[in-house]
Amino acid sequence: MILINIGDELLIGQVVNTNAAFIGQQMAAAGFELTDVVTIGDEGEAIRQTVTAALGKTDIVLMTGGLGPTKDDITKKIICDLFHRELVIDERTLEHVTEIFASRGMALTETNRQQAAVPQGSTVLPNPLGTAPGLWVEQDGKLLIALPGVPFEMERLIKEEVLPRLKSAKQQSHAILYKVLQCTNISESGLSDLLEEYEKQLPPELKLAYLPKPGIIRLRLTARGDDEAVLKSMLEEHFAKLQQLTLEYAFTDEDIEIEEVVGRLLVKVGKTMATAESCTGGYISHLITSVPGSSRYFQGTLVSYSNDIKRDLLNVREDNLKRRGAVSEQVVSDMALNAMGLFDVDYTIATSGIAGPDGGTEEKPVGTVWIAVATPVRLTTKEFHFGSRTGRKQIIERAARAALNMLRIEIEKDLR
Amino acid sequence: MILINIGDELLIGQVVNTNAAFIGQQMAAAGFELTDVVTIGDEGEAIRQTVTAALGKTDIVLMTGGLGPTKDDITKKIICDLFHRELVIDERTLEHVTEIFASRGMALTETNRQQAAVPQGSTVLPNPLGTAPGLWVEQDGKLLIALPGVPFEMERLIKEEVLPRLKSAKQQSHAILYKVLQCTNISESGLSDLLEEYEKQLPPELKLAYLPKPGIIRLRLTARGDDEAVLKSMLEEHFAKLQQLTLEYAFTDEDIEIEEVVGRLLVKVGKTMATAESCTGGYISHLITSVPGSSRYFQGTLVSYSNDIKRDLLNVREDNLKRRGAVSEQVVSDMALNAMGLFDVDYTIATSGIAGPDGGTEEKPVGTVWIAVATPVRLTTKEFHFGSRTGRKQIIERAARAALNMLRIEIEKDLR
Repeated sequence: MILINIGDELLIGQVVNTNAAFIGQQMAAAGFELTDVVTIGDEGEAIRQTVTAALGKTDIVLMTGGLGPTKDDITKKIICDLFHRELVIDERTLEHVTEIFASRGMALTETNRQQAAVPQGSTVLPNPLGTAPGLWVEQDGKLLIALPGVPFEMERLIKEEVLPRLKSAKQQSHAILYKVLQCTNISESGLSDLLEEYEKQLPPELKLAYLPKPGIIRLRLTARGDDEAVLKSMLEEHFAKLQQLTLEYAFTDEDIEIEEVVGRLLVKVGKTMATAESCTGGYISHLITSVPGSSRYFQGTLVSYSNDIKRDLLNVREDNLKRRGAVSEQVVSDMALNAMGLFDVDYTIATSGIAGPDGGTEEKPVGTVWIAVATPVRLTTKEFHFGSRTGRKQIIERAARAALNMLRIEIEKDLR
Repeated sequence: MILINIGDELLIGQVVNTNAAFIGQQMAAAGFELTDVVTIGDEGEAIRQTVTAALGKTDIVLMTGGLGPTKDDITKKIICDLFHRELVIDERTLEHVTEIFASRGMALTETNRQQAAVPQGSTVLPNPLGTAPGLWVEQDGKLLIALPGVPFEMERLIKEEVLPRLKSAKQQSHAILYKVLQCTNISESGLSDLLEEYEKQLPPELKLAYLPKPGIIRLRLTARGDDEAVLKSMLEEHFAKLQQLTLEYAFTDEDIEIEEVVGRLLVKVGKTMATAESCTGGYISHLITSVPGSSRYFQGTLVSYSNDIKRDLLNVREDNLKRRGAVSEQVVSDMALNAMGLFDVDYTIATSGIAGPDGGTEEKPVGTVWIAVATPVRLTTKEFHFGSRTGRKQIIERAARAALNMLRIEIEKDLR
C-alpha cells in the first residue's frame, strides 16, 4: 500500500504532515503494510506521474488532499483521466452539500455544486463532517482511495468507511504485530551494546528498532509473517527476554506517553496532583489534561510567569527570589511545597528555567531548568541543562517530560 | 530536490514526520524547490531503490535517518555501494565521539566507533549535538546529503552546514517567494467564490492556495520564476489586491500563529494578560508562552480543573457552579473577572467545556465550550460547539484558538 499526500503546504513545511502518521497507525494496526509515503505539490503533472507510478508498484493507493472546493484541487479530474471516466454529479452528496450550506444560511454556488461531482462508477464515501466526500475506485485489480486532506474529516473516513471496506475485502498482505518497551536513564548506543547478542539471535520474522525521544528510548519489536498465531507467540517469547535484559531501564511496555504512565499510576495509588510552572508555561498541565479521565487525579496548575505571581500566589520567599534568582533550587522548592497546600493535593511538580532565546547568563545559560517534585514525605530537586542551542520549544518539551519522569519515579517509590 | 525520510516509525505512524516540514520551510525560504518527499522503512532494498530513483529524477537528494549507532541504520553502506566507495574512519569524528562518551564517563565500544565511519571522499558535516555526523557526497553532477534523523541534530546541520554550502554552490533552480494572508469568520468556499475573478486574472507565475486550519483560513500567494526582482514586485502588487478584497476577514499578513498575533498586539498597547482555564487545561497558556518574549505581557494562568479550585482559588460562586454547572456562561464569566484581580492584569481569557470523550449530556454534549474574555471595560462571552465526534485533542486546540481570536478582537477594539 502506498500513501500519497497532496499539498504545496506540506512541501514548503507550512503544515506538518500528521495525516501520514494517522494513516500509518491505522493501517499497521489493521495489518496493512504501508511501504511508501509520498508527498507532492498541487500540480497536475506531478499528481498524474506519482499516482501512475504508485499503481504500477502496488495494488492499493491511498491519496489525501486535492478534493476541496478551491482551485488548487485537481485530483478528481486526474482520477477520471487515469481510469477513463467522466465526472458526474452524485445526488446524495449534492443533497448533503446543499444541507450544509442551508444550515449556515448560505446559498449553493457553482463551486460548491462541483463538490458533489465524482468519477462515474466510483463508490462515494460519505463525509458528514465536510463537503468533499471520499472516493473508492476499483479497476483492473487496482484500488484507488481518495480522501479529503482536512485531518478530522480524513480520520473519520478512514475509521468509518475505508478500514471496514478494506477488511472485508481481505486484502491484507500479511500480519504485522509489534510491542513497545520504553526505557530511560540509558543512551541509545548503551542499549544497543546491551542488546547486541539478543538482536543477533532474533528469528528473521522479528526486528528490533530504537526510537529515541528526548530523555526516553522506545524499543519496538516488530513481527511480520503470514501466520498471526505463530507470530504472536514468537513476539511474546522474545519480548519477555527483552524485558528481562532491560529490567533496570524499562518503565512501561505500553506505547503510551509519560503523562499517561503518570496518570495510570495516580489512579492506581488513588492520589491527586497539581503543577506550579514557570518556564514550562502550562505545557506539563496541557500534557496531563490531554489524557482522557485526567480530572480524576489532576486538580490544577498555577503558571507563575512573573516573580510577582510567584511571590503573591505561590508564597515564594522574596529573599530566595532576590538572592538566588527565579531559576534556583530554593525557588522551585518553595513553588512545589506551597502548591501542595494551595491545591490540596498529594503530589506537585514545579519548574523554573530559561527557555530562551534570551535571558541566559554565564552562570545560568539558556537551557538551565530547575525541577522540584514534592510528595507528602519527600522533596526532590534536580538541575537540568538542556543546551543553549536546543531551541525554546525543545527546552520546554524536554523539561516537561523530565519533570513527569521525576514524578513517575516518586510515585513508584510509594508503590513499593 | 527530493527529500527521503527513512524510518519504520514514520510509516507506522509511531512518530510524526516533523523533519519534512522543517526541511521544507528552510529550503523554500532559501529558494530551493522540494518536489517530492518520500518516506520509506529501514529496509536496505527499499532505501537503495528509492535513492537510485531519486538521483535519476533530480540533482540534489537529501536524506534523513539511518545514521545512528543501532542495527536498523544501514544508510551509510548503501551510499558506499551506490557511489562505489569504501567506509573509512574519519579521525575528527572519532575524536568527537570519544569526547562525548568520555564526558559521560563511558568508554567507547565498537558500535560507537562505527559512528565515525564515513564513505571515502565524502565531506563530513560535524554534528556537535550528537554522535552521527552529516554526509555530503558529490559524484557525476549529483549531490547526496545524508543527515541523522534526530530532529534537533538535523535542524542544526541544515542551518549551519547544509544551507550555507548549498547557497555558495548556487544550485537554486529558481526563485520562490510567497506571502500569506490569514482570514477568519468566512468559509473556505465562501472565500473561493469571493476570489474567483481575482484568481482567474493572476499571471502564470502566481498561484493562490487555501490552507484551512480550525477557525482560520490561510491564503498563500506563491510566485515562482527566474527573476527575483520581477517576481517580488509582481507578488506585492497582487498581494495588495488580495488584501483589498478580503479586508473584512483578514487579520494578519504574516505567517504567524494567533498566539503571536495576540502577543504583538499586547506589546503594542503595553498591556498584560492572564488565563483561567478549565477544559483547555493550560494549552492556551502553553501557546502564549511558546512565543519568545511573552514574559513581557503574560503574567500567569490558573488551571482550575476541579470545581473546588474554581471556587476556592478563582472565587467562582458556589451558586453558579451548582445551578448552572461548571460549563456555563456564569462560571466562565466569574473565572475571567476574578482572574483579572488575582493576576492584576488588563485582559483575561477563561474557558470551561467538555473535551470528552466522556462527560457529555444531552443538554451539553461533548464539544460544548464556554469562553469569556474580560477587558478593563467589557466582558464578552461565547458558547462554542466543536462537535461531539471531533476528539479531545482537537476540541482543546479549537477552543484555545477560538479564545485567542476572541481576545485579539477585544484588543483591536481598544486600538481604534
